[in-house]
Amino acid sequence: MEDSNKFAAAAATNVEGQAQNEERDPESNSIREPLLKRNRTLSSSPLAMVGAKVSYIESLDYEINENDLFKHDWRSRAQVQVLQYIFLKWALAFLVGLLTGVIASLINLAVENIAGYKLLAVMEYIENKRYLMGFLFFAGANFLLTLVAAVLCVFFAPTAAGPGIPEIKAYLNGVDTPNMYGATPLIVKIIGSIGAVSAGLDLGKEGPLVHIGSCIASLLGQGGPDNYRIKWRWLRYFNNDRDRRDLITCGASSGVCAAFRAPVGGVLFALEEVATWWRSALLWRTFFSTAVVVVVLRAFMEYCKSGDCGLFGKGGLIMFDVSGVSVRYHIVDIIPVAVIGVIGGLLGSLYNHILHKVLRLYNLINEKGKLQKLLLSLSVSIFTSVCLYGLPFLASCRPCDPSIPETCPTTGRTGNFKQFNCPKGHYNDLATLLLTTNDDAVRNVFSINTSTEFDILSLTIFFVLYFILGLITFGIAVPSGLFLPIILMGSAYGRMLGIAMGPYTKIDHGLYAVLGAASLMAGSMRMTVSLCVIFLELTNNLLLLPITMLVLLIAKTVGDCFNPSIYEIILELKGLPFLEAHPEPWMRNITVGELADVKPPVVTLRGIEKVGRIVDVLRNTTHNGFPVVDEGVMPPVGSQTGATELHGLVLRAHLLLGLKRKWFLPERRRTEEWEVREKFTCVDLAERWGKIDDVAVTKDEMEMYVDLHPITNTTPYTVVESMSAAKALVLFRQVGLRHMIIVPKYQASGASPVVGILTRQDLRAHNILSTFPHLAKSKVEKGH
Amino acid sequence: MEDSNKFAAAAATNVEGQAQNEERDPESNSIREPLLKRNRTLSSSPLAMVGAKVSYIESLDYEINENDLFKHDWRSRAQVQVLQYIFLKWALAFLVGLLTGVIASLINLAVENIAGYKLLAVMEYIENKRYLMGFLFFAGANFLLTLVAAVLCVFFAPTAAGPGIPEIKAYLNGVDTPNMYGATPLIVKIIGSIGAVSAGLDLGKEGPLVHIGSCIASLLGQGGPDNYRIKWRWLRYFNNDRDRRDLITCGASSGVCAAFRAPVGGVLFALEEVATWWRSALLWRTFFSTAVVVVVLRAFMEYCKSGDCGLFGKGGLIMFDVSGVSVRYHIVDIIPVAVIGVIGGLLGSLYNHILHKVLRLYNLINEKGKLQKLLLSLSVSIFTSVCLYGLPFLASCRPCDPSIPETCPTTGRTGNFKQFNCPKGHYNDLATLLLTTNDDAVRNVFSINTSTEFDILSLTIFFVLYFILGLITFGIAVPSGLFLPIILMGSAYGRMLGIAMGPYTKIDHGLYAVLGAASLMAGSMRMTVSLCVIFLELTNNLLLLPITMLVLLIAKTVGDCFNPSIYEIILELKGLPFLEAHPEPWMRNITVGELADVKPPVVTLRGIEKVGRIVDVLRNTTHNGFPVVDEGVMPPVGSQTGATELHGLVLRAHLLLGLKRKWFLPERRRTEEWEVREKFTCVDLAERWGKIDDVAVTKDEMEMYVDLHPITNTTPYTVVESMSAAKALVLFRQVGLRHMIIVPKYQASGASPVVGILTRQDLRAHNILSTFPHLAKSKVEKGH
Repeated sequence: MEDSNKFAAAAATNVEGQAQNEERDPESNSIREPLLKRNRTLSSSPLAMVGAKVSYIESLDYEINENDLFKHDWRSRAQVQVLQYIFLKWALAFLVGLLTGVIASLINLAVENIAGYKLLAVMEYIENKRYLMGFLFFAGANFLLTLVAAVLCVFFAPTAAGPGIPEIKAYLNGVDTPNMYGATPLIVKIIGSIGAVSAGLDLGKEGPLVHIGSCIASLLGQGGPDNYRIKWRWLRYFNNDRDRRDLITCGASSGVCAAFRAPVGGVLFALEEVATWWRSALLWRTFFSTAVVVVVLRAFMEYCKSGDCGLFGKGGLIMFDVSGVSVRYHIVDIIPVAVIGVIGGLLGSLYNHILHKVLRLYNLINEKGKLQKLLLSLSVSIFTSVCLYGLPFLASCRPCDPSIPETCPTTGRTGNFKQFNCPKGHYNDLATLLLTTNDDAVRNVFSINTSTEFDILSLTIFFVLYFILGLITFGIAVPSGLFLPIILMGSAYGRMLGIAMGPYTKIDHGLYAVLGAASLMAGSMRMTVSLCVIFLELTNNLLLLPITMLVLLIAKTVGDCFNPSIYEIILELKGLPFLEAHPEPWMRNITVGELADVKPPVVTLRGIEKVGRIVDVLRNTTHNGFPVVDEGVMPPVGSQTGATELHGLVLRAHLLLGLKRKWFLPERRRTEEWEVREKFTCVDLAERWGKIDDVAVTKDEMEMYVDLHPITNTTPYTVVESMSAAKALVLFRQVGLRHMIIVPKYQASGASPVVGILTRQDLRAHNILSTFPHLAKSKVEKGH
Repeated sequence: MEDSNKFAAAAATNVEGQAQNEERDPESNSIREPLLKRNRTLSSSPLAMVGAKVSYIESLDYEINENDLFKHDWRSRAQVQVLQYIFLKWALAFLVGLLTGVIASLINLAVENIAGYKLLAVMEYIENKRYLMGFLFFAGANFLLTLVAAVLCVFFAPTAAGPGIPEIKAYLNGVDTPNMYGATPLIVKIIGSIGAVSAGLDLGKEGPLVHIGSCIASLLGQGGPDNYRIKWRWLRYFNNDRDRRDLITCGASSGVCAAFRAPVGGVLFALEEVATWWRSALLWRTFFSTAVVVVVLRAFMEYCKSGDCGLFGKGGLIMFDVSGVSVRYHIVDIIPVAVIGVIGGLLGSLYNHILHKVLRLYNLINEKGKLQKLLLSLSVSIFTSVCLYGLPFLASCRPCDPSIPETCPTTGRTGNFKQFNCPKGHYNDLATLLLTTNDDAVRNVFSINTSTEFDILSLTIFFVLYFILGLITFGIAVPSGLFLPIILMGSAYGRMLGIAMGPYTKIDHGLYAVLGAASLMAGSMRMTVSLCVIFLELTNNLLLLPITMLVLLIAKTVGDCFNPSIYEIILELKGLPFLEAHPEPWMRNITVGELADVKPPVVTLRGIEKVGRIVDVLRNTTHNGFPVVDEGVMPPVGSQTGATELHGLVLRAHLLLGLKRKWFLPERRRTEEWEVREKFTCVDLAERWGKIDDVAVTKDEMEMYVDLHPITNTTPYTVVESMSAAKALVLFRQVGLRHMIIVPKYQASGASPVVGILTRQDLRAHNILSTFPHLAKSKVEKGH
């Protein structure tokens, strides 16, 4: 969580007006002071990254770079290579599903066994009335497990902390966060997740699984971790941001699928919550990945039925199966359902609000250093242990109901009626909920036909405890998912509501718990269709669908009245420049020309440029793309002399490559295609080539020339300067751009064919507003 | 089907090289012969529409027309109006769901009763051994019912024939087909669908329901049918193509939901198959509509349980419930499942192929006149009646299996073991499948734990019959859906396969039937996720999910090797200019500049233009948009004199409005904003204003001026002439454009700031290829 907390810290500092870092904006011309005030959070220069508080975030190129080399490479691709590409695409989707499924199975296996043996030992102490020893063992085991997870996260992969879903969302929107998808985060996330979940902390493995799926996808796509990549020729086709994006989408879907064993829900989650761009072909591939995950999970559970998996074994393909219950509801039941929805929306937005505050507080603590981060995590672990172990003693023992077929009381690890400290024939309902794994707790709260099982006081304690634990646990430096804490809270309050409404309705209390969980999810995460399908697949009861839909819609609507979804809050907190699908209404009142006016003048290069000038430009600016303009070209028919021509856009990475390869010409001339092909391949262009400071150019070479034409993207997307910022944003996001060139609306000789260049940062509402505050005064309206 | 058949006919004629119509291209300059050969099918001029074979199709404007009036209107919108808009948006989504649900219920009620009483009467004749009378009654009733449906379709609303889904798909892609969403098609579709389905024809009410939902949405959005619109002020916000598009998406989802009682499936169907643009907010609204549909359907069925609905009553929220069966399958069962998938893909693509041929043949017949169309429909009806009634006599009577708890034999309308001509204690398995409604037939084939019920010979007859009927029925002039015929065929072949594989597998034959239906759907329609969810919701068995997914993926993959999906085939046949999401690879080899070169020169207007010139341009061209260029404006800083400026794009409709309102100026000057507002409102601009021939302009007025600035869209999307057609297509489709202006890459005085203008037709692969045939020779590859 280090990195993310640091972003968040910086953002928080910024909000409080104490911004002191004046790092250079990566996309601005550092020679002059930029007039356009940007969000400083993201504006660190690449040089300030090591040890700095704020990491450098790069935009991704989702546009196809149609330069001469690409075109040649594309033309020369034989049919067999195209087939290779297609085959590989599907093979990778298969592997993503397979590996995610296997890793998810192993995590489940590890968690169930570690937590299971831990709980068995604790139960034994309790049975022997050695309560203090039991507590010491329980707290000690949890402490150690948390320590493992936290140490890994703090010292080896800070990016592995937290759920990772906001970063994946940002990645698919076009923002690359560094060290997010490597091998280290993957391994730390797996081990950390096992540790943190086994430690009984109030967090889930669902979010981390999404991140794990994405890491697997990214590693597969690039052929292994950064240092040990497989140099397989076939993989070169995947060496671009577009194909990586598609793979990571598959990975995220597979992760959700593995977490909830919900293949359709996984696809929809990726579609509704995570992905920015989407197309039919991807839908199909994602679906394939999740199908593989389900088959793997099923095979694994089939294998474990034989008893070779230790304490693992309970549960089938569906986690919280309530298909057995006969669902009966009538028109009048709409009232309690609506009440659940409204309260879920209120609670969800309240949770978001408080979590936001807590995360900002945590950032201040985490900022202080690694030790502080570690101590915070460990204190949360101790607090959790104390509560989980101590609170059940407050609950009174309840006699077993002999009419219920289940064993009562149970003393083992699982089971719905925990004996705990009670005499024979009695059970402790709070221990049933607290002294168990989170998954089992959910299963117990969801349990049906057990309407007298839980006391409303116990449920209240459970609810309040998990509300507090959920808030204080999420921000600590271990891999943590948000889904399960919210489900736990929601199911508790749903069941409480069920008890309260008992006399007026016939819906089972277990279903109330399910609906409560759904409503709180919708109230906090603001998803609809995907949540609905996930719950459908989770509970295996289709007849619940209409009321689940109703609850979700109401909860989301209520929640939206107060604050944005939790993921958006985290994105904002981390300062990730996420581009929303809809422009703010006031963006119609400003043109891209006006935006360009307040930016430093655009730096253009000539088609055949002096090496010295290129080095100069690369050293003195931090732009990543430069328009290439040819002057004095043959004028088009009908016009007078002196035409200038916009040839296209050249990327910093490609200029660096040219300099590194010493691709210099002694005289000012155009190069032939074969000359270029001798020097570069399309694969070279896909790499990112270090920094300008690594390039050594002699003084003689400085006087030579480079022909930029072959490496220039001749078809960049452009907008006319009179285009409104709103429409430019739509284009930018819909097509997935990194740079957008502004061309003049005037035709006049001597004028430049480029007015300016826009990047993601320039189109962010927050950044525009800080330069043009009067826009905010125009009415705040919701767009069409 | 009249219109569509005529398109198709024209397309077919065209393909065969017999094109004789040389109508004017609506988007080309008629003064000169267009050099770019376009697809003639669509290129009729609006004047040639009445009585012509090819209807005029208009493109839709999904872009926001940011002219001065719009901006003013938008600025002056009070908060309360914004709330009105949001409220209305949701209210309309609610109404769409409600009305679709009610109409679907009524259709079900009517069909079940009409077909039910018809079948009861037939059964009585058979019981009394009066076979000939039975046949005459059966065939006569079917004939009359078909007659009603066909007469309505042929004489009142030709657009109501067929499923309507391809047209909706085209609409959401940006192509408006005339008379598609009015009140007449709606009513004809409802009555026609009842008639055709009750007549026992091999077609479903599923496709028509999608069209019905869309019609309702469109009518609600515009405030009623064209002639009797409600002039409600609130509705003015919906008087644009964008909001209509969203509403129609809701309508289409509701239709699917009502057809299959599958709310999530409905949303996904709209997302995967129908919609071109999609966003999260729409997902949510669509989901709301389908939730309303489900509630309505549930309430209706709850009501009908009391027995007030005549013969209606069977069935619950889930149509073909197989949730009772315990699904057991192991790794080895993958083999039969894969076999089903492969065969489904093969059969599906074969079906598509033959259907394509049949539709082309039908077009030739339908072209001949209305009587011929009618006769064709009636012959199909008689043929169907003969087969349905006669074929069961071929099947041998089978003794009832006493171990099965169901009543056997049954003599009433429904029931799984029809006695028909058999002695007591025996049943006729073919009559069970044929002499019943299509819905019941599916339910019978899907029935579980009845593995000995059907003879493989009977199933073969059933399969072959429905394969033939499906092919010959789809193209006739009645509302017909494709889903049910394919489900019938698929379930038959699935069950046959189940019998054949009986000894090697433990999967129930009913499940084989379900999987067979799914595989054939995927093989023909090529959907994946949405079909999967529809089948999930249809069969209410989540554990079927993994194998269903596998079957669907295999079937789609196999089918894709042979031909496109059936909807794409129909779209192509009708000549609807659908823009695909992915550009053809060879489109990278041609720039938009080259495309513009082969088009007639672009017709531009000046910012303040003479009335005479506007009239002239409108009369002599059929363009719908004209770039507005100001000459001799103040040059931008740094350039020399003589600048020209691209001000924007003005639409034909708005020019016509200006002429109609006589918005003329005696002298060449700019108008003030208040002058414009006195004359026009934003609502006026949203209407489409007739033809230029309806506008009378006097000779004096011809010499006056019009200030085009206020009605010009100042922010049209543009591309530089060096942009490749592939990328231009991506922009065009992603942003939903109607016109795209090409700007020069050169900057030179005296040159025009507009190089050309591109429309949907110019970017269609087929049209580009006919002008640049050499492009086709470049390697045929699949894109990234």
